[in-house]
Amino acid sequence: MLRQISRQIKTGQKSQKFYYSSEGNNNASLVPLTAERYQNVKRGSYANLEEKDVKFFESILGTNRVLTQEDELNGYNTDWLKTVRGQSKIVLKPKTTQEMAEVVGHCVRRKLAICPQGGNTGLVGGSVPVFDEIIISTNLMDKIENIDVHSGVVQTQAGVILEKLDSELGEHGLMAPLDLGAKGSCNIGGNVATNAGGLRLLRYGSLHATVLGLEVVLPTLDNTKSKTGSAQILDFMTPGMKKDNTGYDLKQLFIGAEGTLGIITKVALACPPKPEAINLAYLGLESFDQVLVTFQKAKEFLGEILSSCEFMDGEAVDCVTDNLNLSSPIERQPFYMMIETSGSNQGHDEEKLSQFLEHLLENGTIVDGTMATSPSHQQQLWPLRERISEALLHDGYCYKYDISLPFDSFYRSVDVMKARLGDDIVRCVGFGHLGDGNMHLNITSKTYNQEIMDKIEPYLYQWISENKGSISAEHGLGFKKKDFMHFSKCPVSISAMHQIKQVFDPYMIMNPYKVLPST
Amino acid sequence: MLRQISRQIKTGQKSQKFYYSSEGNNNASLVPLTAERYQNVKRGSYANLEEKDVKFFESILGTNRVLTQEDELNGYNTDWLKTVRGQSKIVLKPKTTQEMAEVVGHCVRRKLAICPQGGNTGLVGGSVPVFDEIIISTNLMDKIENIDVHSGVVQTQAGVILEKLDSELGEHGLMAPLDLGAKGSCNIGGNVATNAGGLRLLRYGSLHATVLGLEVVLPTLDNTKSKTGSAQILDFMTPGMKKDNTGYDLKQLFIGAEGTLGIITKVALACPPKPEAINLAYLGLESFDQVLVTFQKAKEFLGEILSSCEFMDGEAVDCVTDNLNLSSPIERQPFYMMIETSGSNQGHDEEKLSQFLEHLLENGTIVDGTMATSPSHQQQLWPLRERISEALLHDGYCYKYDISLPFDSFYRSVDVMKARLGDDIVRCVGFGHLGDGNMHLNITSKTYNQEIMDKIEPYLYQWISENKGSISAEHGLGFKKKDFMHFSKCPVSISAMHQIKQVFDPYMIMNPYKVLPST
Repeated sequence: MLRQISRQIKTGQKSQKFYYSSEGNNNASLVPLTAERYQNVKRGSYANLEEKDVKFFESILGTNRVLTQEDELNGYNTDWLKTVRGQSKIVLKPKTTQEMAEVVGHCVRRKLAICPQGGNTGLVGGSVPVFDEIIISTNLMDKIENIDVHSGVVQTQAGVILEKLDSELGEHGLMAPLDLGAKGSCNIGGNVATNAGGLRLLRYGSLHATVLGLEVVLPTLDNTKSKTGSAQILDFMTPGMKKDNTGYDLKQLFIGAEGTLGIITKVALACPPKPEAINLAYLGLESFDQVLVTFQKAKEFLGEILSSCEFMDGEAVDCVTDNLNLSSPIERQPFYMMIETSGSNQGHDEEKLSQFLEHLLENGTIVDGTMATSPSHQQQLWPLRERISEALLHDGYCYKYDISLPFDSFYRSVDVMKARLGDDIVRCVGFGHLGDGNMHLNITSKTYNQEIMDKIEPYLYQWISENKGSISAEHGLGFKKKDFMHFSKCPVSISAMHQIKQVFDPYMIMNPYKVLPST
Repeated sequence: MLRQISRQIKTGQKSQKFYYSSEGNNNASLVPLTAERYQNVKRGSYANLEEKDVKFFESILGTNRVLTQEDELNGYNTDWLKTVRGQSKIVLKPKTTQEMAEVVGHCVRRKLAICPQGGNTGLVGGSVPVFDEIIISTNLMDKIENIDVHSGVVQTQAGVILEKLDSELGEHGLMAPLDLGAKGSCNIGGNVATNAGGLRLLRYGSLHATVLGLEVVLPTLDNTKSKTGSAQILDFMTPGMKKDNTGYDLKQLFIGAEGTLGIITKVALACPPKPEAINLAYLGLESFDQVLVTFQKAKEFLGEILSSCEFMDGEAVDCVTDNLNLSSPIERQPFYMMIETSGSNQGHDEEKLSQFLEHLLENGTIVDGTMATSPSHQQQLWPLRERISEALLHDGYCYKYDISLPFDSFYRSVDVMKARLGDDIVRCVGFGHLGDGNMHLNITSKTYNQEIMDKIEPYLYQWISENKGSISAEHGLGFKKKDFMHFSKCPVSISAMHQIKQVFDPYMIMNPYKVLPST
């Protein structure tokens, strides 16, 4: 039975927006130090922070924007998943590109390693230091500089929080071209640095297309002879037009470089018009084959209005209902889907969606479902998908895998890992961006367990490689996955990446121990 | 008055598809040699082709796929615009990546310069040699390897002609994500190498997002110690998934590098579903302000079904009617627009389009217009836009500019150039991809005239730069525009581009004299 127009969802607690946070991470000091858990990684021969460095940074930023107290630093040293922890002694918070260039310039001259940090919502240990890297936070670079309603292009500093950017754009009839669970904390510079995908990539495309301009502070000096020179600035903001074929599109290298080539300080982004009508269907299905059929039918019936096609397995939704006390508005099913439409005409869209859902029910493709046409009902449904990551953390430790796979091996990855891990674990769940071929395969145990880890890695990466997938669809490689790059990239590519690193970061000070495999 | 559903368009001749061609270019030998017209450019210290080289190439490709006769070479040495002509003595036509790697490997060992060539439809002198570079044509690499209807991903060799690719995809319910006037001759590898935009970029996005995988043969040896080694191959085809964040996205560098970093041999492309319903409106307007209003209203009324928004000024359409004997189905107006919708429901789309057109008529935004709902009527209208480039060549010589500009200075660029050039020229016209902020500003004279050229360049580039535009929106820099890059890119970027070139092409043999400014 399909309930047209959502019935009230039973929630054990008031639906609340989850905010990731890099501050107030109370138990941060309980997270093992990265240097202790990963003993193979050795500190590079960088300079150590000295009092004179702190004085220099304070001369540029003032004392309020140079943090050195341990209790202030904990949140910046620890990742959101509480799986890695660095030992930085300092956090710098520039507000302008010029300030950024001056503090980075000092680090270049002194050979101090840097860890750039945005909202610190990364999931692969890329946004926190491994040892004592200087943390440079973009959080105070939060000015939206210009919104052009005619071209749909926004120019903004990198530290603007995604949700704030989207909300400002909304007031001009536009929307951010990406949306993700961490939107309340992640910032747009970090999104670009990690090439974030999110819930609506299948409709609005990748950041490689929507990012029209960047400004990047490089870890090189403007004038190598100067003892006081600031860092070089790459200005890709001009022209920042939708089309610009004047030479190599170098800004693309910084999209997904996870801060290892330079620090993104400004972004120009192409933004689509905010849709007039948004609808959301939440469906229950008996098998993954029916999930795939439903996706094909969604493309056929919904066409240009399809804006999101997510799936969750029963265990993933169980985790949200078990651990966060939310409840699902339909009977428990082996699989669920969230299918969203966005369009310019509510009547047309509802007609398309109704025909689609009727087709699925008539053919027995779905077992149950509910449809939400109002924003408030949609905001009650989305947490069943968006809060899975948070819910999994309540189990204890989460081994996170974010993979691309062809559809014929897509869900098999979960079955394979369940069979391999047996009763050693609390849960093994699959959910994610079906429309992009992107699976979040997550495994939990009560505490971190090296034996479980050794059963997962590199076995899972090998399996993904044999099945022609990517070992990181959207989260990146960061610190945790860098040494597995060869499962997705050929040796010639990896060698070229090392050379590219050398071009932009000749002193290897920018976010070291990340992305590139150890040599 | 708006004629709903197109009336027959009067054509002086049967509407015919125009094919660009690199062969049978009968008057090619009349085109001045590039080395003579551009005397500042000097041949690099590359080896000269010798008989032993020809023998080697024949040992790999056979004699049929090694062209050395002057009459066979003319078309390959001359660009489609007949503005530049090289003096290559040889054309090589590999069919496989391995053959490509072997002939490129030989060129590396011998330090023979290479000019990669696809369909030879480029407009900036990038696809023909400047001196005696070895031409390596991808035309015989024309096998479509796989079409996955579920994921919408096609894997193909680089030499497949765009129109053929689109037609094959159509049989599987898919379409190519780009479309351009040269589709009958250009090939997909060349499209990627020049980052072609075309008529529907505003709907289906840039190749930076839709290209999921590439295979590239590099101008470096697999084993530098080997005397017979073939060239290195960069394999970005695996994983070739919609999302892959495993390290720097190096394939992006080859999108728009115009063959100066390596030769693209395979492409994986994300393809949208072929729309069920396509409609086309051809509108006449009194002013460019009304063109802009119409574009804003198109976004508002048509939303997600808007697939193309082109504009032409009266003089551009005059040129097609004067020189090609086509006729326009509406009264002569100062401006025209082509607005196309593509959707999954003809009824919904016609309703949206009718409401849009009624709004424009009621408000006096448009003067006249016609709407074509059938493919045959649409194929009669499109030549009024697509054949402008061809029509301009009938005037004599065409000075082509392909620029991005913000809307407030968009059409002013044409007025500025008309005022500057006065009666020296035959025509100065503006047309292009309004929806992308991309103007084709074209000027014609009876023959090439250095005084006219000196009045245009660098004046126009300076003007574009001052107005925050790009001097090349989609055609690239090629040979003709490389020394003007600094009008759109900062010195730090240009310096980094030279270093990137060094990474992939250390001997500087790949498409020399192109893209990067002279040093």
